[in-house]
Amino acid sequence: MEEKVKISMLLSFYGKLLTKKQFNFLDDYYNNDLSLSEIAENNSITRQAVRDNIKKGEKKLFEYEEKLMFMKRTLNQEKKIEKALSELTKIQKDYSDKQIASVLESIKKELSCLV
Amino acid sequence: MEEKVKISMLLSFYGKLLTKKQFNFLDDYYNNDLSLSEIAENNSITRQAVRDNIKKGEKKLFEYEEKLMFMKRTLNQEKKIEKALSELTKIQKDYSDKQIASVLESIKKELSCLV
Repeated sequence: MEEKVKISMLLSFYGKLLTKKQFNFLDDYYNNDLSLSEIAENNSITRQAVRDNIKKGEKKLFEYEEKLMFMKRTLNQEKKIEKALSELTKIQKDYSDKQIASVLESIKKELSCLV
Repeated sequence: MEEKVKISMLLSFYGKLLTKKQFNFLDDYYNNDLSLSEIAENNSITRQAVRDNIKKGEKKLFEYEEKLMFMKRTLNQEKKIEKALSELTKIQKDYSDKQIASVLESIKKELSCLV
């Protein structure tokens, strides 16, 4: 996974454990595509101070993931559910019986909510 | 959910974010069924100090859950997956065709790993 995407995902998992400032800088940088200079200007601080805050926030996000592994577990789970969904779609195509098709459809709907 | 069970689950989710001492006391109290006095004796500290550490640890666990909601999300997800599994079992019984039974079996295995 690309580093930028990874940090953005980690932020959605653990962002609430960061300071408000760290969260906002990381959010601006990784999700809103603002440059360090733009964030610095918006907050009336130096570019270096923005960079330091972002680095500190990133470090915390990686530490949380190392300890809790929620992102790893979630991605692993999504992969398995997607595989199950695609197999359900396959048998749904092969078996046109209405009753089974309708049950499979409802199972697929439930599982889809989880990915 | 019973408070004791809830704290034990929260500990399995967020325990790694507590101090080693807090984790061990909570683990002894909630998972190993030791009394406050027994934990105090084992660690050569007062019963009150054990209680304070446990209270502090519990507070942190509830704060993490309030921010991250991993336990709530996981329990919700498990409920949905269990429902899907029971529906799969039902159609597997009604449709004895070997091919479909084998695909359903493999889907159930995959989903079972997630609960």
